[in-house]
Amino acid sequence: MSLPDLFANRTLRMSASEIRELLKLLDQPDIISFAGGIPDPAYFPRDAFAEAMDVALSEQAAGVSLQYSTSEGYTPLRAWIAQHMAGLGVPCSPDNIMITAGSQQALDYLGKLLIDKDDTALVGWPTYLGALGAFNAYEPRFDRLDAADNRAPEEIAEAAKAAGGRVKFAYVSPDFANPTGVTLDMTERAALLARADALDCALIEDAAYQSLRYEGESLAPFLAMEIEAKGDIEACRTIYLGSFSKTLAPGLRVGWVVAAKPVISQLVLIKQAADLQTATLNQIAVAHVAQAVFDDHVATLRDVYSTRMRAMLDALEEHMPEEVQWTRPEGGMFIWVTLPRGMDGKALLERALKAKVAFVPGGAFYADGSNANTLRLNFSMVTPARIHEGVARLGQVLRAEG
Amino acid sequence: MSLPDLFANRTLRMSASEIRELLKLLDQPDIISFAGGIPDPAYFPRDAFAEAMDVALSEQAAGVSLQYSTSEGYTPLRAWIAQHMAGLGVPCSPDNIMITAGSQQALDYLGKLLIDKDDTALVGWPTYLGALGAFNAYEPRFDRLDAADNRAPEEIAEAAKAAGGRVKFAYVSPDFANPTGVTLDMTERAALLARADALDCALIEDAAYQSLRYEGESLAPFLAMEIEAKGDIEACRTIYLGSFSKTLAPGLRVGWVVAAKPVISQLVLIKQAADLQTATLNQIAVAHVAQAVFDDHVATLRDVYSTRMRAMLDALEEHMPEEVQWTRPEGGMFIWVTLPRGMDGKALLERALKAKVAFVPGGAFYADGSNANTLRLNFSMVTPARIHEGVARLGQVLRAEG
Repeated sequence: MSLPDLFANRTLRMSASEIRELLKLLDQPDIISFAGGIPDPAYFPRDAFAEAMDVALSEQAAGVSLQYSTSEGYTPLRAWIAQHMAGLGVPCSPDNIMITAGSQQALDYLGKLLIDKDDTALVGWPTYLGALGAFNAYEPRFDRLDAADNRAPEEIAEAAKAAGGRVKFAYVSPDFANPTGVTLDMTERAALLARADALDCALIEDAAYQSLRYEGESLAPFLAMEIEAKGDIEACRTIYLGSFSKTLAPGLRVGWVVAAKPVISQLVLIKQAADLQTATLNQIAVAHVAQAVFDDHVATLRDVYSTRMRAMLDALEEHMPEEVQWTRPEGGMFIWVTLPRGMDGKALLERALKAKVAFVPGGAFYADGSNANTLRLNFSMVTPARIHEGVARLGQVLRAEG
Repeated sequence: MSLPDLFANRTLRMSASEIRELLKLLDQPDIISFAGGIPDPAYFPRDAFAEAMDVALSEQAAGVSLQYSTSEGYTPLRAWIAQHMAGLGVPCSPDNIMITAGSQQALDYLGKLLIDKDDTALVGWPTYLGALGAFNAYEPRFDRLDAADNRAPEEIAEAAKAAGGRVKFAYVSPDFANPTGVTLDMTERAALLARADALDCALIEDAAYQSLRYEGESLAPFLAMEIEAKGDIEACRTIYLGSFSKTLAPGLRVGWVVAAKPVISQLVLIKQAADLQTATLNQIAVAHVAQAVFDDHVATLRDVYSTRMRAMLDALEEHMPEEVQWTRPEGGMFIWVTLPRGMDGKALLERALKAKVAFVPGGAFYADGSNANTLRLNFSMVTPARIHEGVARLGQVLRAEG
């Protein structure tokens, strides 16, 4: 007997996340790490959380905070989110909102909600690695989502049918996407929404970084555009995912989903069966902190991170060999670097670690593992001086390659 | 377009949990509720949690407590659990342990780990409703697990094969099970373990109530028996699920899985993809509270709940009509009542609610919805005086039926 002989077929598609494994290597203080997608803990709103816990664990409140609660989530938090969404052009009620244990959990539940084996999920090329991981458990086929895709929707639908399923959704992160840092402009957003309409599939909008804009004007989320066009969230195919991990703190695992009520109702059933509810205490604490400091705190983060982003863009300009290219984000936490064809990000990482600088090789962000000549740089965790030093080290490693 | 048209086939098997829906009705203070499986919030270790949060959110600690952490879980908490497990006769290392967001999440992840569509899961008849819900998402066939089952293992395996899969696991809660309150004796445990050996399937041991014994001697968990027989946890098919929800507090959502390392490694991959990790802050707080008060606190709970269990057993003796039967648990939170054949628990509930007493009808706990003439009574949330009053009300409703 060997228990792995009993494992389900879906486990064959699961492999260790390169990012999570990398995190384990990065404890050495002399490495300058551009890996990970981690907010800087120096800027967590610690005082606000400590105060929130004092209130939540007071004698009057602890009986509720430490107890079971509903699967849909803590009502005052859903009310705060409804107000926040209204500010983004998304009028909705708390009944359109479910709280999740981080937006990663929303990806898992949406896979469970929508994917039958061999259905097609349209994803960016590259896309968020964690989305591929979450969806993989439901054994989809991945096809390419691209604002510049020339294929007719019928061609995409036919390919999905030939693979034994249908196109169930397109997954897209419109603002400062992980891993590229790229933002879709309004024309690209309209084209993707029209494509989802033509394919009659759901559109999963991952807005994890939406609040972290450092330059330019805020652009309407897909869900706002669709409500504008169709009149009501109940007529919309967009399922919006939000997260407090990048704005307040990731260690509490609180995120949310906004969608038409039939989607929320079914997700609530999924959550009931999967983990009952998101931790009551965490939801109460996050509601308290969001009410108290959200806007001011996000303004602070924007200041800090925008300085770092500009430092990294300057350093790349200064230290990269001429044939290397990179994105110029307007927010978020990442810059995406493209090396000359034929170079390999993983091989480069091995040499870079010897030079005490780290990043995430880009191949993992492609559903087909292509484009190995790419890498993701994170700037949220590193001070400007260290950013300059780290990018200089990376430049030296690259020049030594040539 | 209608998004529900896109839902996966598995959603057809999901329906609202009667228990969770019932909880919403029970806010009326004049109802005496024996529904739910909720610990009494008057006995949460509030002071210990408040102190733990003060420490975890101190300036020195908050950068870690509010940050991302590893998928396998907080090492000091896994070390405490390893010691706790050793005390139950289960020698293991922290590498045999993964932290989950409550043991409900472990059930979801084990479904994901083990069940291909049409595989067979052996479950009690009745069994924990939440286990049926969690496994359902992976579209298994359910077959009956019963210590007194006369079928040869070959017959069970053949039926599984005929249904298009194989027997992947038996799911069992050996101590004061939800919903029946029944404890398996050592002979029954040995028989079930031998049956799992013969079927060469995993054995999922749900130990949610294990610490809440009020009478009699503690019995060895399946995992302890199997390690005793086979020499090492790495040779064992038992996957043990523990929870802090019934001993410390459910609102933090912290539980754990103990198993051979290849199982834990694969579960860690599943967790990475599904929700990254259990909330860091909650794990740190629970580790602190467990280290500080676990044994003393559980002793307090045993005192309180055992008084309530005895009050309910006395009240049943006094108020039930002669033809009604019930279990006599040695711990846990539940007593299981069997009404005369032909009576219907759901219909009874409607009348009981008018008499201001509530319970959970038993039919939902059977994978095939049979045995509607049963009901589950919870005694952990109700004081002895109210227990007597509530059971008296129930007795009156039953006599009015006759």
